[in-house]
Amino acid sequence: MGAQVRIGMIGAGRIGKIHTDNLLACPGAEVVAISDPCADAALEEWGAVRNIAVLPDSDAIMANPGIDAVFICSPTNTHVPLIKQAALVGKHIFCEKPVSLDLARTAAAVEAAHTAGVKLQIGFNRRFDHNFKRIRELVQDGTIGSLHMVKITSRDPSPPSPDYIRLSGGIFIDMMIHDFDMARYIAGCEIEEVYAQGEVLIDPIFATYGDLDTAVVTLKFANGALGVIDNSRQAVYGYDQRLEVLGARGSAAIANDYPNTAVISTASGIYRDKPLHFFLERYHEAYKEETRQFIDAIIHKRSVPVDGNDGLQAEQAALAALISSRLKRPVKVSEALQLSRQEGLSFA
Amino acid sequence: MGAQVRIGMIGAGRIGKIHTDNLLACPGAEVVAISDPCADAALEEWGAVRNIAVLPDSDAIMANPGIDAVFICSPTNTHVPLIKQAALVGKHIFCEKPVSLDLARTAAAVEAAHTAGVKLQIGFNRRFDHNFKRIRELVQDGTIGSLHMVKITSRDPSPPSPDYIRLSGGIFIDMMIHDFDMARYIAGCEIEEVYAQGEVLIDPIFATYGDLDTAVVTLKFANGALGVIDNSRQAVYGYDQRLEVLGARGSAAIANDYPNTAVISTASGIYRDKPLHFFLERYHEAYKEETRQFIDAIIHKRSVPVDGNDGLQAEQAALAALISSRLKRPVKVSEALQLSRQEGLSFA
Amino acid sequence: MGAQVRIGMIGAGRIGKIHTDNLLACPGAEVVAISDPCADAALEEWGAVRNIAVLPDSDAIMANPGIDAVFICSPTNTHVPLIKQAALVGKHIFCEKPVSLDLARTAAAVEAAHTAGVKLQIGFNRRFDHNFKRIRELVQDGTIGSLHMVKITSRDPSPPSPDYIRLSGGIFIDMMIHDFDMARYIAGCEIEEVYAQGEVLIDPIFATYGDLDTAVVTLKFANGALGVIDNSRQAVYGYDQRLEVLGARGSAAIANDYPNTAVISTASGIYRDKPLHFFLERYHEAYKEETRQFIDAIIHKRSVPVDGNDGLQAEQAALAALISSRLKRPVKVSEALQLSRQEGLSFA
Amino acid sequence: MGAQVRIGMIGAGRIGKIHTDNLLACPGAEVVAISDPCADAALEEWGAVRNIAVLPDSDAIMANPGIDAVFICSPTNTHVPLIKQAALVGKHIFCEKPVSLDLARTAAAVEAAHTAGVKLQIGFNRRFDHNFKRIRELVQDGTIGSLHMVKITSRDPSPPSPDYIRLSGGIFIDMMIHDFDMARYIAGCEIEEVYAQGEVLIDPIFATYGDLDTAVVTLKFANGALGVIDNSRQAVYGYDQRLEVLGARGSAAIANDYPNTAVISTASGIYRDKPLHFFLERYHEAYKEETRQFIDAIIHKRSVPVDGNDGLQAEQAALAALISSRLKRPVKVSEALQLSRQEGLSFA
Repeated sequence: MGAQVRIGMIGAGRIGKIHTDNLLACPGAEVVAISDPCADAALEEWGAVRNIAVLPDSDAIMANPGIDAVFICSPTNTHVPLIKQAALVGKHIFCEKPVSLDLARTAAAVEAAHTAGVKLQIGFNRRFDHNFKRIRELVQDGTIGSLHMVKITSRDPSPPSPDYIRLSGGIFIDMMIHDFDMARYIAGCEIEEVYAQGEVLIDPIFATYGDLDTAVVTLKFANGALGVIDNSRQAVYGYDQRLEVLGARGSAAIANDYPNTAVISTASGIYRDKPLHFFLERYHEAYKEETRQFIDAIIHKRSVPVDGNDGLQAEQAALAALISSRLKRPVKVSEALQLSRQEGLSFA
Repeated sequence: MGAQVRIGMIGAGRIGKIHTDNLLACPGAEVVAISDPCADAALEEWGAVRNIAVLPDSDAIMANPGIDAVFICSPTNTHVPLIKQAALVGKHIFCEKPVSLDLARTAAAVEAAHTAGVKLQIGFNRRFDHNFKRIRELVQDGTIGSLHMVKITSRDPSPPSPDYIRLSGGIFIDMMIHDFDMARYIAGCEIEEVYAQGEVLIDPIFATYGDLDTAVVTLKFANGALGVIDNSRQAVYGYDQRLEVLGARGSAAIANDYPNTAVISTASGIYRDKPLHFFLERYHEAYKEETRQFIDAIIHKRSVPVDGNDGLQAEQAALAALISSRLKRPVKVSEALQLSRQEGLSFA
Repeated sequence: MGAQVRIGMIGAGRIGKIHTDNLLACPGAEVVAISDPCADAALEEWGAVRNIAVLPDSDAIMANPGIDAVFICSPTNTHVPLIKQAALVGKHIFCEKPVSLDLARTAAAVEAAHTAGVKLQIGFNRRFDHNFKRIRELVQDGTIGSLHMVKITSRDPSPPSPDYIRLSGGIFIDMMIHDFDMARYIAGCEIEEVYAQGEVLIDPIFATYGDLDTAVVTLKFANGALGVIDNSRQAVYGYDQRLEVLGARGSAAIANDYPNTAVISTASGIYRDKPLHFFLERYHEAYKEETRQFIDAIIHKRSVPVDGNDGLQAEQAALAALISSRLKRPVKVSEALQLSRQEGLSFA
Repeated sequence: MGAQVRIGMIGAGRIGKIHTDNLLACPGAEVVAISDPCADAALEEWGAVRNIAVLPDSDAIMANPGIDAVFICSPTNTHVPLIKQAALVGKHIFCEKPVSLDLARTAAAVEAAHTAGVKLQIGFNRRFDHNFKRIRELVQDGTIGSLHMVKITSRDPSPPSPDYIRLSGGIFIDMMIHDFDMARYIAGCEIEEVYAQGEVLIDPIFATYGDLDTAVVTLKFANGALGVIDNSRQAVYGYDQRLEVLGARGSAAIANDYPNTAVISTASGIYRDKPLHFFLERYHEAYKEETRQFIDAIIHKRSVPVDGNDGLQAEQAALAALISSRLKRPVKVSEALQLSRQEGLSFA
């Protein structure tokens, strides 16, 4: 009746703690240890309450033969070496997105996991959201008919800190990567070509780091459908996460989730509260489902729902978008890596 | 190719003018004259622009053999004598609601029109509204299944003037009469019993005249269904006109109409403009359709869509509600007239 | 760091199991034992997974000095003796609604808990729902202004089993009791008078047991506001839980919760999925919050959010409704108990 | 009190008849004659009912000194000569969109009207729609803050006939031209650059004529904002006309208009009727307002609300889109004419 999957959590930041708490409530999972170079008394206490060992680095986790799987929630630049190390010692891997800011390194990490025969799941949490899943079903079951168009709106309530922006790799790999993955998931096929347009309209700090804060990217899918993604780093009314599909037999659209359904009518108008504030609230249940499915995949020896190739494809689309925005022309996803080298354009 | 129905308009208040303009745009109708004891230079000009004779009283209209039909849009206390007079001279009649504040007099007027063989249509404009019509269809075509419940919300944006309140006959005959008619129209059967509760919550002026400003009335229909109507003289967010039905196979509900569909999202919330302000805006198209159908009934010798009996039934339900609110017990619609005499309770 | 509140669960039916699982995830709470006369191997296994002792009756729970509080989730007719017993042994009590089908017995049980100085919380779970809470806030903070009207719609997706109906005490005490409590909670004052109308429109089985399946009840509140509650045992489109308030400064309305926000547009119309199916789905989070607040009240020695008097008041309103529906006249809540005796009308 | 503006209607197709009927109800306007080479007995009768002379060609209209203004509702290829002719004889001009399929010819026509000092209004009816006007207001009054993004969805319920497609000039000039005008109107500035992607996904007939049936075009505005327009020739759920803006202080979005607000709930889901079917229904009121404002501009010697330059700018953007879709690169609107000549790309 004991846990069937013992886990080492690498990285005790916000997302590492969320995954930990979700795993605590997940039948069949046990979090044995959590490592973080910034481990302090507060983290010690946080671990003690949960009966989880707190470690200063991930080596002991990697060396512990009693640990079946690791969650990599440390900074992006550590993902690739940790994946390789975990693969070598035969541990299953859940890794946050993006795998890296360098497509070749991502490919190598994915390959390492594959070769070692360990599972590698990438943290595209939105696939587990009730709304997006419903759209996926409607496309898959034929309700929408053959697909003509996918439209994704994804806007944050407010920009991240300058430090975050500086290291993020830019809007395409840091933010829109979720939407590239969603586009592939919904369309059920690969993105073949992108055309990206972006501006700095919110805060000049983005320009300082060569980044953009507002972007519109059009897509061509392998099945002939068209797509468009729009991103903004600041929707003052809150986290805006919508998607629409159009097909030969109809369309389907999802709206935001709200904290309540109350509609208030006064002498000055009709109003309601703003949508769920940000990803922690909006994707609360999706994060739980994401970890549950990873654990289930291990227990039942099934494929993970989002694998290394999914991570790689989304990064490749993001790279194509970056290049398109710089070269001001459409870019095929298949030519992104070569163009990146040729033109010296990368996320780093 | 000339007009087939020549009309005399009696009463040049707001509603008389609206009907006139709607008739001008109505194929087959011609407004020949309009009468009003308050006729002045402004009305003369208003008539001149439209090529309509302006008269100080309705006698010349009644005496004019070239006039086929009259619209009675004068004060309520003139309705009965005018209906009787028009019936005597063989003119079809469109009369605003209520026919009178006295059920026996209303019955006599309806009888007079019937005996004379002239058409009598009562001004229950809401029956011609796109939303209410759709609900009626859904009940009639079986979509909702056998009816279990009808719920009507009907609220004005602001109370009428004290002078209006004083002569109105009270909330049940002045305001809720529309809802009693709507309840019958939607249920497709008669109201058998009502229980009325009311309060003065908005303005003590209503109490001064023995009136109420907020009321909830429950209904029992002949088909066994239950109903509830709520009225308020002041919904500060605007004219509120909604209806819901529940039946064995489902439910249907209509919401308000709005001036536009814009949804505005800002840092302080999500909002939209208030609904169409009042009955002139909300029932703009319904008023047009109402007159068109009256003219069509005359031209094509068909029944009018809302007849004298409809006027009578709604008044009877209103009287039952008044008595119920005073006696604090449920009252059958069939006993309203007798109870009214017995208890000395009336609208006047 | 151990649990601060040790709990004995009495009754291992659906709701007892839900409370148990919610308590497992509730910091500061520990479920020590669960008792049920129908305890079998399946329940033993269910308890073993959760490390909870399974007992054939509640005596050992009552006798265990290490247990601080009991959850009474057994059949209604056992509530009163269990409350009295728990009060005697100084255990805090969470009791499902209704406390009993007999107002005098409920009052005695509430009194017993009060005398013993133990907390008694009644299971009105809807008070903890995100939507209803928002309406309460809007009334309390003055957004709505002085209250004029409260309207509650509460409909089940399908009728309960004949056996359940037979023992339920009828629609007013079994189903509408939630709405009476909600009405008091939202209005922030007592219900003074009710007028109840009901019919058997869905299934004749209800008539067999002297029960109703469709009901409309109007309310008068102590603050002058009017109210109306409608109940149906069968809304084929799903669990329908809505509420509206109208006041001097505006109105607020809550709609149902849905499993997703997808709107699907096809050649045959625009549609969306049905609302969350039933109370377990719709009030999933409310049930969690309900137990959390009970545990918090014990730990922090605060009042419970819904106490014995709340249970008593709702039962009294339900009794007044039952009597009103039988006597066909409005009934004051304060006269319900006396009329019940006088007229021989009760839930049992 | 006679009509102040006497009109000659050129072209008696669907749109010519609609404008005629709208002008009949427009104070200050009188339609004197209508010309159409296909004039037949049915048209004669249609004119007789309305007291309008029916003519086989427009020459008599042009020659009639009593006619103040012409409406050009004949096929696109006749617009330019008719504008020039009307300008020469000093008549004000209302011309349907597009002015022509050749930018240079359109420019010459606009210039002719300008030189002659006659008013020239272009038939961009959507500017007069209640929903789009509200968005324009919200942008203009600063509610949205500085503009970041404009998104337009514009989809027809079903494709036009092959004959229509053959002569239409293609999706960008025939259909999306409305959206280019709307984009300029909402943004309050010019479109600087477009990138157009299109596919044939609905019907191979479009490919036969070198046309597209599904297109996504991204825009760069002079004020820095980004835009995206999506068009489909077949949204099976009906005419889909939506628009969203995003700015520094918020966003605003308009939904479709529906024939009623009824929401129907059954055992199989929650649904509502499809949106207003097509442009005649959706823009019914907008068409009226469009003609009213043209007449008002003449009477009050004001500028027309949509002038020749507006027509020219929209055509230029459409040409840039066509070229972009062919050259597969972004195209500046300012370079469209030159590229068109250089690359031999045109609508004809």
